[in-house]
Amino acid sequence: MWIDLRSDTVTHPTEEMRQAMAQAEVGDDVYGDDPTVNRLELLASEILGKEAALFVPSGTFGNQVAIMSHTQRGDEILVGEGCHILMHEVGGAAVLSGVQTRSFPTSLGDVTISQLEKMIRGMDIHFPNTGLICMENAHSSGTAVPLETLRAVYRLAKSKNIPVHIDGARIFNGAAALDVDVKELTACADSVNVCLSKGLGAPVGSLLVGGHHFIAKARKNRKLMGGGLRQAGVLAAAGIIALTKMVSRIGEDHKNARYLANRLEEIESCHVYRNRLDINMVFFTLPESVISESALVAGLHNAGIKINGQEDGEYRFVTNYGVSVEDIDKVIETMKRIILH
Amino acid sequence: MWIDLRSDTVTHPTEEMRQAMAQAEVGDDVYGDDPTVNRLELLASEILGKEAALFVPSGTFGNQVAIMSHTQRGDEILVGEGCHILMHEVGGAAVLSGVQTRSFPTSLGDVTISQLEKMIRGMDIHFPNTGLICMENAHSSGTAVPLETLRAVYRLAKSKNIPVHIDGARIFNGAAALDVDVKELTACADSVNVCLSKGLGAPVGSLLVGGHHFIAKARKNRKLMGGGLRQAGVLAAAGIIALTKMVSRIGEDHKNARYLANRLEEIESCHVYRNRLDINMVFFTLPESVISESALVAGLHNAGIKINGQEDGEYRFVTNYGVSVEDIDKVIETMKRIILH
Amino acid sequence: MWIDLRSDTVTHPTEEMRQAMAQAEVGDDVYGDDPTVNRLELLASEILGKEAALFVPSGTFGNQVAIMSHTQRGDEILVGEGCHILMHEVGGAAVLSGVQTRSFPTSLGDVTISQLEKMIRGMDIHFPNTGLICMENAHSSGTAVPLETLRAVYRLAKSKNIPVHIDGARIFNGAAALDVDVKELTACADSVNVCLSKGLGAPVGSLLVGGHHFIAKARKNRKLMGGGLRQAGVLAAAGIIALTKMVSRIGEDHKNARYLANRLEEIESCHVYRNRLDINMVFFTLPESVISESALVAGLHNAGIKINGQEDGEYRFVTNYGVSVEDIDKVIETMKRIILH
Amino acid sequence: MWIDLRSDTVTHPTEEMRQAMAQAEVGDDVYGDDPTVNRLELLASEILGKEAALFVPSGTFGNQVAIMSHTQRGDEILVGEGCHILMHEVGGAAVLSGVQTRSFPTSLGDVTISQLEKMIRGMDIHFPNTGLICMENAHSSGTAVPLETLRAVYRLAKSKNIPVHIDGARIFNGAAALDVDVKELTACADSVNVCLSKGLGAPVGSLLVGGHHFIAKARKNRKLMGGGLRQAGVLAAAGIIALTKMVSRIGEDHKNARYLANRLEEIESCHVYRNRLDINMVFFTLPESVISESALVAGLHNAGIKINGQEDGEYRFVTNYGVSVEDIDKVIETMKRIILH
Repeated sequence: MWIDLRSDTVTHPTEEMRQAMAQAEVGDDVYGDDPTVNRLELLASEILGKEAALFVPSGTFGNQVAIMSHTQRGDEILVGEGCHILMHEVGGAAVLSGVQTRSFPTSLGDVTISQLEKMIRGMDIHFPNTGLICMENAHSSGTAVPLETLRAVYRLAKSKNIPVHIDGARIFNGAAALDVDVKELTACADSVNVCLSKGLGAPVGSLLVGGHHFIAKARKNRKLMGGGLRQAGVLAAAGIIALTKMVSRIGEDHKNARYLANRLEEIESCHVYRNRLDINMVFFTLPESVISESALVAGLHNAGIKINGQEDGEYRFVTNYGVSVEDIDKVIETMKRIILH
Repeated sequence: MWIDLRSDTVTHPTEEMRQAMAQAEVGDDVYGDDPTVNRLELLASEILGKEAALFVPSGTFGNQVAIMSHTQRGDEILVGEGCHILMHEVGGAAVLSGVQTRSFPTSLGDVTISQLEKMIRGMDIHFPNTGLICMENAHSSGTAVPLETLRAVYRLAKSKNIPVHIDGARIFNGAAALDVDVKELTACADSVNVCLSKGLGAPVGSLLVGGHHFIAKARKNRKLMGGGLRQAGVLAAAGIIALTKMVSRIGEDHKNARYLANRLEEIESCHVYRNRLDINMVFFTLPESVISESALVAGLHNAGIKINGQEDGEYRFVTNYGVSVEDIDKVIETMKRIILH
Repeated sequence: MWIDLRSDTVTHPTEEMRQAMAQAEVGDDVYGDDPTVNRLELLASEILGKEAALFVPSGTFGNQVAIMSHTQRGDEILVGEGCHILMHEVGGAAVLSGVQTRSFPTSLGDVTISQLEKMIRGMDIHFPNTGLICMENAHSSGTAVPLETLRAVYRLAKSKNIPVHIDGARIFNGAAALDVDVKELTACADSVNVCLSKGLGAPVGSLLVGGHHFIAKARKNRKLMGGGLRQAGVLAAAGIIALTKMVSRIGEDHKNARYLANRLEEIESCHVYRNRLDINMVFFTLPESVISESALVAGLHNAGIKINGQEDGEYRFVTNYGVSVEDIDKVIETMKRIILH
Repeated sequence: MWIDLRSDTVTHPTEEMRQAMAQAEVGDDVYGDDPTVNRLELLASEILGKEAALFVPSGTFGNQVAIMSHTQRGDEILVGEGCHILMHEVGGAAVLSGVQTRSFPTSLGDVTISQLEKMIRGMDIHFPNTGLICMENAHSSGTAVPLETLRAVYRLAKSKNIPVHIDGARIFNGAAALDVDVKELTACADSVNVCLSKGLGAPVGSLLVGGHHFIAKARKNRKLMGGGLRQAGVLAAAGIIALTKMVSRIGEDHKNARYLANRLEEIESCHVYRNRLDINMVFFTLPESVISESALVAGLHNAGIKINGQEDGEYRFVTNYGVSVEDIDKVIETMKRIILH
């Protein structure tokens, strides 16, 4: 059994999810006939405090269909520098929606309102319309964006009549880190995308939540983008368990991440970014002089541990419900052993 | 238990599929780590006689990602009039791929080669490049396009250096109707999209098959379109059963369709289109003077039978593995009863 | 001095136009400061009976910016088969506006209303929205579409709340052929594109006319498409003369076309399409056995006469204000001489 | 006669240009028949040291058609923050070319190579391809980007096989400020867009220069974007004079800008940005306590002087060949008078 620290996307469905999938009551969801999908969408809209929800195949799909549904061709959307939509969605917003991405400066996901405000376009024949502001929470730098920031961004956006979307792939991590009800976060946006397949452990799928009218548009655009599934109830059944059983345990991953951070600091020259330790991710550096990237990846692999190589000179280890305290101890012992060797 | 004649998309997963889903070995398919998906893709490439395969969330997704992967922005693609890509995919090709659709005349899916040839663009500053020819087999008019036509289209396309895509949502129906190995059909195209979720009964998913280089491009474009799934093995497990257990029984649906057609003709003034009875669909008309559309739909619904209303003045009843001979008898008896009433 | 029958796009500016261009009062039209452009736009809106007008660089630009301004990304637009937008604008509508083109059958530009009506999309999750109907008048097949047809199309469109655009590159030819005020034609559309650079002889530019709100949108989209010009008054000055001095003489080109047709029939085996002789174009066939295409083109070229080669087996000769009756006589004499030779 | 400091786009054609336009030898440039356009394109390719040139209607058009011709749908293009393509082209790159814009930090147009290098994408299924790097010189902040920077960017780009485009709307200003032959600048790019209608005084048009293959693609894309003009020789005639007579005098505008800067500093509390005084633009601030924006704009207007209001709290005055030393003196005297009042 591998210990997999590459991401929380690698989690396997729980036994309970598997049983639920096998027994799911299904129908053709393109016709609106799948009772399990309908149940999941209702549940999600309640938990996340929005009028309606839409089951989509992935987090990228959820963000992109949200962009398509909020904007018109030719709009500009404001996204935080380094955010997933800009950096890890294959440039999709330009292709799928014909919108220009412009990035605002962020500090670990946090935003200076006056800087954001200056980026909103006025009336001028040379300017595109500012069609959407996208936030990300929890932020992929490992932080939870403060609730005050989200509120201030939303106030600003509303004063300018601009919709706000939150890429909430890990919004439950964000809520846990901030110790607030997730509804407090979703109240700061017109739409939120939430992944069932990361820390929550479902095999496939995300949920886009928002107002009735918006979700109706997104449902149509989902079909255009090829995301209209048939008996999706088999996936939704796992999603229901993710939402009802897995959310409450997500803080455990955070605790484990802090434990992992502490133990990493036992390793000489290992520098952990303590200011980016809000959720289930640990970012750190380890000099090549101590151990080379390839040696670390290979050495851990040989011991049954999967990690990614560095990105921009940093390692990122991600805890998830498949990673126990014992696993973390094994990781640290193995690292020490490899380095000594 | 409903009798559902609306489509073959309404089929529920078999018990065996459900068990396979519950027990599927999975991994993160975005990392290429899902063994069940890998097994399904290998199996599909073998059965369909192509170098490689890609699991996608839906038939529309498969067609659209194929278009994106074959063409460049600004190309023109030639599609048969009335085909699914033109009529039932929400105009996606223009949005997602920036290509112009131009339709060639078809006769129940069949094509006159000289007409098609005239539509291929020459060199002229006013003309887009002809970037793709799309065929559909089985054709949604209820027919199987002759193998000779597919071969002639492919020969023409190759002589002009234009790729060919087959929308083979029901290609196994096509092969069964023509009584040929499915590889004979797929040999007439550079890419083929095949649905697991129609007559084959899997809950979700389609397969795009083609050459290595093309599938690599499509895999990247699948990510862009939001179709990169995580533990997709839960769906692939059902897909493997669809391909290995369900293909061989698809002729039964065709036999049932012909039985249904015969029995419909017992009804006074009911006109069955005998020339469109190649696969699992029965198209017929029933004059309003005999029974109104709304009365027929409602009357059958009360008896536990789901049908769609007319499209362009025609009814379409679709057989599938959830519809038995006894079910068909019940449908006919109910129709007779309602009409008399 | 060449005789140029290739098109009416080859016309040179008149001496009066050249003088007007040299003396034009100009300003920066991006700032709305060019008095001559403003004068031209006002004049055009009056002559064509619409609230507002926009000067654009070409006929293709005018059609495409109209499509962009009427539609939303993902709409379907209905265009006549063989029309300029579908056939000769490089597939631009998909690239620039993200809309799907679907063609309705036409008979020399004329339309059967019931056929068109059937193509308008209803509400269905599989369907794009029908966002625009495009007519073309005069039609490039050489005919003027009857006023009754335009009116019936417009009535249908309005009943469905769909805008209508007329590609009126040669709308003054259409009006002359139908012997109606051009306002009768433009009243049957929400927007019309009119070329100054064909029969009217201006060197560069077209005018898009429509309602205030629509033209404001088109003005913004013109900037996006790179068509915001600076001191465009130098071109507008020629355009004003085109509209005020050249429209009234356009019937002469039609008369000359009929004269040319009559004289072509003197040539053995030359078949003129008499049913497509409404405007300044003469379509005819001349068997290869009489003279080969290359011999005809080269022989005329040597005598100072430019023609295009055949398209779809037909020759097209176009009269314009640079082609006199004497020129036509010379063309016929030269053809006869070459053929005999 | 107005003194117009709003931009150098407001310049009127010279008398010599007007005469040239009136006498221009013309033809249908869509057929490649316009001798004056052909002459201008040849001249531009020689002066700018590239294989070929293309006349386009505007600078925005030139940049956008370059982007379309360099990239494929879905690419990412790297642009300097604050550059014209990102800020003042209505978001066109996403609409027209389906590419994502990502901005690199610049210091008044200058670039830190290591920062730029980090933004070039590697191979990863989440990443778009880096399809183009865009520089701007002279930069719209009022500076000339150093030749060494351009060279280093080009070396980096070539090492990664990425094309470079220079938005050279004011490239002759850049060359004059740097005191180098313009060919030194254009040698650092695969394509350059050059405006004839700014400091060079032509009424309409820009030139895109590059390799033969690239320009052939751009010519086709120009048609798609609606920029294929007919007797464009009337504009090209002015362009030839712009290139042959006006380039050499552009340094005068720079001298005048410095004179204007010096004189502005006579005004109390007027802060001139001395580090952005390379070309024909003067950026400065003037506190509201001294004079309000509206009072300044209105007061100058009453005296026959046009200026723009502030952008981001700064005024920008632009010199051009229509602005003499005497005009500048009048501007300063008027400002002093208004402020005292």
